[in-house]
Amino acid sequence: MMKNILLAPFAALIALSPLLAQQPSEKEHPGPAAIVDAASASDWKAIAPSDLLVMDLAPGATGEARRVIIQLISAPFSQGWTDNIRKLAAAKFWDGTSINRVQDNYVVQWGDAGYANPESGKIDPKPLPDGLETVQESEYTVALQESDISARMMKVIETSLGMAGHNDAYSFSPFWWNGWPLGVSQKETAWPVHCYGAVGVGRNLSPDTGTGAELYTVIGHAPRHLDRNIAVVGRVIEGIEHLSSLPRGKGELGFYTDAKKRVPIQSIRMGDSLPEAEQPQFEYLNTMSPAFTRYAEARANRRDPFFITPAGGVDICNIPVPVRRVK
Amino acid sequence: MMKNILLAPFAALIALSPLLAQQPSEKEHPGPAAIVDAASASDWKAIAPSDLLVMDLAPGATGEARRVIIQLISAPFSQGWTDNIRKLAAAKFWDGTSINRVQDNYVVQWGDAGYANPESGKIDPKPLPDGLETVQESEYTVALQESDISARMMKVIETSLGMAGHNDAYSFSPFWWNGWPLGVSQKETAWPVHCYGAVGVGRNLSPDTGTGAELYTVIGHAPRHLDRNIAVVGRVIEGIEHLSSLPRGKGELGFYTDAKKRVPIQSIRMGDSLPEAEQPQFEYLNTMSPAFTRYAEARANRRDPFFITPAGGVDICNIPVPVRRVK
Repeated sequence: MMKNILLAPFAALIALSPLLAQQPSEKEHPGPAAIVDAASASDWKAIAPSDLLVMDLAPGATGEARRVIIQLISAPFSQGWTDNIRKLAAAKFWDGTSINRVQDNYVVQWGDAGYANPESGKIDPKPLPDGLETVQESEYTVALQESDISARMMKVIETSLGMAGHNDAYSFSPFWWNGWPLGVSQKETAWPVHCYGAVGVGRNLSPDTGTGAELYTVIGHAPRHLDRNIAVVGRVIEGIEHLSSLPRGKGELGFYTDAKKRVPIQSIRMGDSLPEAEQPQFEYLNTMSPAFTRYAEARANRRDPFFITPAGGVDICNIPVPVRRVK
Repeated sequence: MMKNILLAPFAALIALSPLLAQQPSEKEHPGPAAIVDAASASDWKAIAPSDLLVMDLAPGATGEARRVIIQLISAPFSQGWTDNIRKLAAAKFWDGTSINRVQDNYVVQWGDAGYANPESGKIDPKPLPDGLETVQESEYTVALQESDISARMMKVIETSLGMAGHNDAYSFSPFWWNGWPLGVSQKETAWPVHCYGAVGVGRNLSPDTGTGAELYTVIGHAPRHLDRNIAVVGRVIEGIEHLSSLPRGKGELGFYTDAKKRVPIQSIRMGDSLPEAEQPQFEYLNTMSPAFTRYAEARANRRDPFFITPAGGVDICNIPVPVRRVK
């Protein structure tokens, strides 16, 4: 029942006088939230409204609005699919579709679940707009030597702490690039990873890669086994609670067996198609900034007063990239 | 945009004839669920009703019953707290308390949030039953040399695959013991880890360790930084959707600011205190069995038809220990 010896004097101080000890400790060793709060304005980077999907669900049981905002990943990752998604939004494809699947500790899925064709009496897929691309499986990853990603990637934990061996079971990790968590294989390819809130493209069996008409978001422990098997196209940056708190579907894989349980989607639009005053304005903490490095390091070594034994390491999905609304 | 070369012939086969290819592939390379289904009766071990907490919430909006079943961890882990929890259940302490906190991608917390004292007009804590133990922080971990745990631990991934270097950022991993995922530090101490569904003991600042009167369960990505900082006392084995799909609290840390939003707890009882015919009967897949090894290996290397690139590794919290009801 060993304790971390480095922490022993600390614990003793707190034991003697918890209230007194708390404040100096928080000042000397700010927690992750305090580090983010202290970041300077220049550490934040704007997210273009043209990279945002604005999804409005039908109002909730008590009439409350339910808006979910998704940031699309930028080139060179998953671009065939995000191009399709922009076309689908422009065509108002999702309006009148629904959330069809809520599987606990896994995903919420929405889009085209088929609709009852009055002529055939069958459930047919909703017709897709023209001009969608069929994306190849090779696009699940990006070759580092074919891009300048490598030079702009940040591997925070090793570089800031000199700690090696903190790769995870799925990739060399943790790396970030332009605000996105990445997996990296043998330093040859990179791919966006399935953390909580990641948005991906539903598909059928290989070689199908999905069009983007059916999307899902992660509402449980990061299902990293999906990395490189499905396209990650973005992440929910606001309103995920409108998805994660929905009743779980009782059918196989969490699909709603009763069509009435499906949650109607009123509309999905690109942020820059809204009237200018209504365009959502967000920014993220630059993952190349010293503030982000300090934040990630503090997530790996919690010294804020609640903690007695810092972990000394951290999983990439436990370092959510800070995103905030611009006031 | 490299592909895993080992998989190329496989992908080509599926491309030629997806429907034909699916069945032989699933037969030759059963997925995790098929492996669990094929396990023999002797690979399963009974969970004693005396190790189960049965929590009944007030019925839901449409009158549906909401029962959550929690398995308590066995000796030598967290025993001071689980002893307290057995006493609290026997004293019917939680009856009439409530779920007070639902924080997205983090925890649902319940128990004593204080009640309005009609004399003082203040929010007072509910009086605790006599005989609860004050547990020491040293009990968050167990020394391996002081027990026979080490001999009964199973490190599946390395032993079955000969793969090294799959320790995670938080511990030597993945290890299991008697059906529980463990973290291990320098092979000297071990502790139960915070995976999705883990149940822990709320506490105040150190040196407080909590009594067990206030409990939480994880409803998001595994918050492993809490390991060794809070007591893990068990896991939800049925009904977690009644907790994970609750509306998120709008107060700080996800507490419900409006007391009316709190979900009433009708009762929490030990399973063996129910009439014999009503005692819940569950079993778990023996983590020392070859079937579990095959299951864990298949979680690390998904070869079922949906997958084109197996991860080649897996996080301990992505190998949930199979638990099933006994019919």
